[in-house]
Amino acid sequence: MSAEESFDIIIVGAGVIGVAAAYYLQKNSPEKKILLLDRMAMAGQANTAMSAAAVRNMFASSTNQMLTDTSIKYFEHVQNDIGYELLFEKTGYLWLLSETQFKHESVQNWMKRMKKSGIHHEVYDKKQLKEMIPGLNVDFSDDEEAELMNLQEADYGLFGGDCGVLDPTRLVEWYFEEFKKICDIKPRFNVNVESLLLEADPKLDLPGEPYVWQKKRVTGVKTKDGIIRADVVVLATGAWTNELLDPIGMDSRTKAKKRHIYVLHAEGKPGMEELLDTKGFSDMNTIPFTILPSAGVYFRPQVQERGFWIGCGDKVGRRYDYIQPPEYDNPESAYYENSVYPVLSKYFPGFEGARPVGSWAGGYSYSPDAIPFVYYDCGVLVLTGASGSGIMKADAMARIADALYRGEDEAELFGEKKIPAQTLSQKERKVEVESVVI
Amino acid sequence: MSAEESFDIIIVGAGVIGVAAAYYLQKNSPEKKILLLDRMAMAGQANTAMSAAAVRNMFASSTNQMLTDTSIKYFEHVQNDIGYELLFEKTGYLWLLSETQFKHESVQNWMKRMKKSGIHHEVYDKKQLKEMIPGLNVDFSDDEEAELMNLQEADYGLFGGDCGVLDPTRLVEWYFEEFKKICDIKPRFNVNVESLLLEADPKLDLPGEPYVWQKKRVTGVKTKDGIIRADVVVLATGAWTNELLDPIGMDSRTKAKKRHIYVLHAEGKPGMEELLDTKGFSDMNTIPFTILPSAGVYFRPQVQERGFWIGCGDKVGRRYDYIQPPEYDNPESAYYENSVYPVLSKYFPGFEGARPVGSWAGGYSYSPDAIPFVYYDCGVLVLTGASGSGIMKADAMARIADALYRGEDEAELFGEKKIPAQTLSQKERKVEVESVVI
Repeated sequence: MSAEESFDIIIVGAGVIGVAAAYYLQKNSPEKKILLLDRMAMAGQANTAMSAAAVRNMFASSTNQMLTDTSIKYFEHVQNDIGYELLFEKTGYLWLLSETQFKHESVQNWMKRMKKSGIHHEVYDKKQLKEMIPGLNVDFSDDEEAELMNLQEADYGLFGGDCGVLDPTRLVEWYFEEFKKICDIKPRFNVNVESLLLEADPKLDLPGEPYVWQKKRVTGVKTKDGIIRADVVVLATGAWTNELLDPIGMDSRTKAKKRHIYVLHAEGKPGMEELLDTKGFSDMNTIPFTILPSAGVYFRPQVQERGFWIGCGDKVGRRYDYIQPPEYDNPESAYYENSVYPVLSKYFPGFEGARPVGSWAGGYSYSPDAIPFVYYDCGVLVLTGASGSGIMKADAMARIADALYRGEDEAELFGEKKIPAQTLSQKERKVEVESVVI
Repeated sequence: MSAEESFDIIIVGAGVIGVAAAYYLQKNSPEKKILLLDRMAMAGQANTAMSAAAVRNMFASSTNQMLTDTSIKYFEHVQNDIGYELLFEKTGYLWLLSETQFKHESVQNWMKRMKKSGIHHEVYDKKQLKEMIPGLNVDFSDDEEAELMNLQEADYGLFGGDCGVLDPTRLVEWYFEEFKKICDIKPRFNVNVESLLLEADPKLDLPGEPYVWQKKRVTGVKTKDGIIRADVVVLATGAWTNELLDPIGMDSRTKAKKRHIYVLHAEGKPGMEELLDTKGFSDMNTIPFTILPSAGVYFRPQVQERGFWIGCGDKVGRRYDYIQPPEYDNPESAYYENSVYPVLSKYFPGFEGARPVGSWAGGYSYSPDAIPFVYYDCGVLVLTGASGSGIMKADAMARIADALYRGEDEAELFGEKKIPAQTLSQKERKVEVESVVI
């Protein structure tokens, strides 16, 4: 590899957002030389693979609704029309909410906005919930432990039937294979981008450039094997974006935290099997992807594997840091035991005694408004801050990035939906704060 | 020192914002036990002492106008009515602007908003500027170097006469001495707060607390000598706020960069002496605090010391990091030589050949909208992100923090100006983005 290789575009990160961006950029600029780089051995092996890989269009902000609804419809198109299996299963999403939560202004606004946007959802009351899910404990009156744990009763269920789960590896493969069909340049793996190359524009070839009075732009990336140059560097680096932007003095406005998934097997556990076989929500005849009323605990049914993935939306108490999956080999079993399991088994006693058979952790990239950033500045096209919903927004974010690259005022999302290309930028951001974050 | 000392309030940081907060908190809650801590040997010795210590009310956002205008009027009150010398000198502020900059929407809006708010300012054209400041080079036509350096000509001067410079050490001493008069507890210096103590509320005394289902709050600070507890911890930690908030998973939404000041002596340099003796702007008979049209370079006249402080507003190219003044002993002489000096001497040839006789660097805390944050969350009262104007906003920020502490809906700033106490918060923030940042 020469120290002065040069491309039109370098894409850093072959997670789901990176491969989707690669695909749309190449598709709409077939003449451009695009190099896709990733530090892992394959596409989609870092934080994309660590995700709960659930997809929902049930957001409160119209921006997130549009990003996810169009992306999900595209995934359905790929699976149903093109016939490429993404293992997209419409289990639905079920928010369990206390009376106080349900009647809160933010939830009422959320439902109003979904109604306005035509996002399918249903409300179940406690009686209906109990009938549909006999294994759900809806009564914490006389339960001192539940009170001590600040657990709120499940009084309502807010259900969305157009939501579900998919296989992130299949989704990454879809974009990656389509990209490879139209790209002449072999993507490179096991390449770690150590830093971005920020240079004066124009360069004067004086020592110590760039000076403060020079225009500056990112002109490439540094790897241990040398510099690779490009007119535009695309950062699809999710939770480790700050590691590349901070050193050149650009503020991503995002922060990252570690998030866990624990795998439980249901076999031989009647309470868990009964849950897996819950009827009435969807054609899948299983319990939906379910968010408990308290502590941020949620689960994803694994219909084929007969089990569950359990996760938890960490808030205050979990440190922000730069996040790399390889550093996360420690699965923190105490976190399951002390924090997640007590909540889970209180709402669903069928989980009593369930211990993880596996677990992993990845990096979650927070934006302050829980809406992603997609913007072009100083030679860098940044896609980050998906706030736990990168998979379900990947298609829309990638199309917006492509529109920005081509200098378009509007991006066209799947289904011919239009969105101003600067909507997710830092400087001309025009979004509502998202209130429905997991 | 006991490992279980306890106070009503601990204030971390005895910079100008910390001592001002200490003063108003104690004044309005005389019964509360307040402990002021600082890692340095004295108050105001960290980033406050590293500042250019200039004060202006010439902002574009009504919020910043109000924060600075009331603070400056308070400083005048202290100096003129109370008779406590702050060395506040109304040199004025002078923005040199190119025709393009002057006519730009953002500058026109800035002037309109200042007019509306009654903030005194004047516009000088090129001819007037040249008459008042013979040493100003207003003609770069035929100057290839200036073109190469992207330098824009000084076509207009935007001058504010109610702005000036003061002595940050005197200002810190004012608040600190007043605080000590009404506080029974001796402030402690040379105490480094290593981390914030985040605990479950209530505590169950189980191993590994706090768990995800527990309410959490900051209940104190950890130092090398042990834990000190308080009902409320006030962070007046400016550029190193992330070092304390990131580990407990709270996002300050600010980032910090290193900023330099270089000291030049004018004696024996006729061009610089002439500048120092500039008539017509103020009773001080000196050149105002002056911001050049390009590259962010500015200078502060030092009337008594017969010299200048030179600074530069770093943008892309200067890394974001956690900032501690002691780590900044390296003054980066190449930065002066290559970045600052070429710009300075191009606009003001009287600086030709001028070399620094001293220099220092400090941490500059950026907020995304260039408006400070003051908010209370989880037991922490945070004052940060002053974006280069902490000294000129200290009085207002401290009064807002005190109102939040007392649970007031409104804060009363100097001159009986009212502001909603949540204006600068994260959750109920209600501010315009500030466009006039140095």
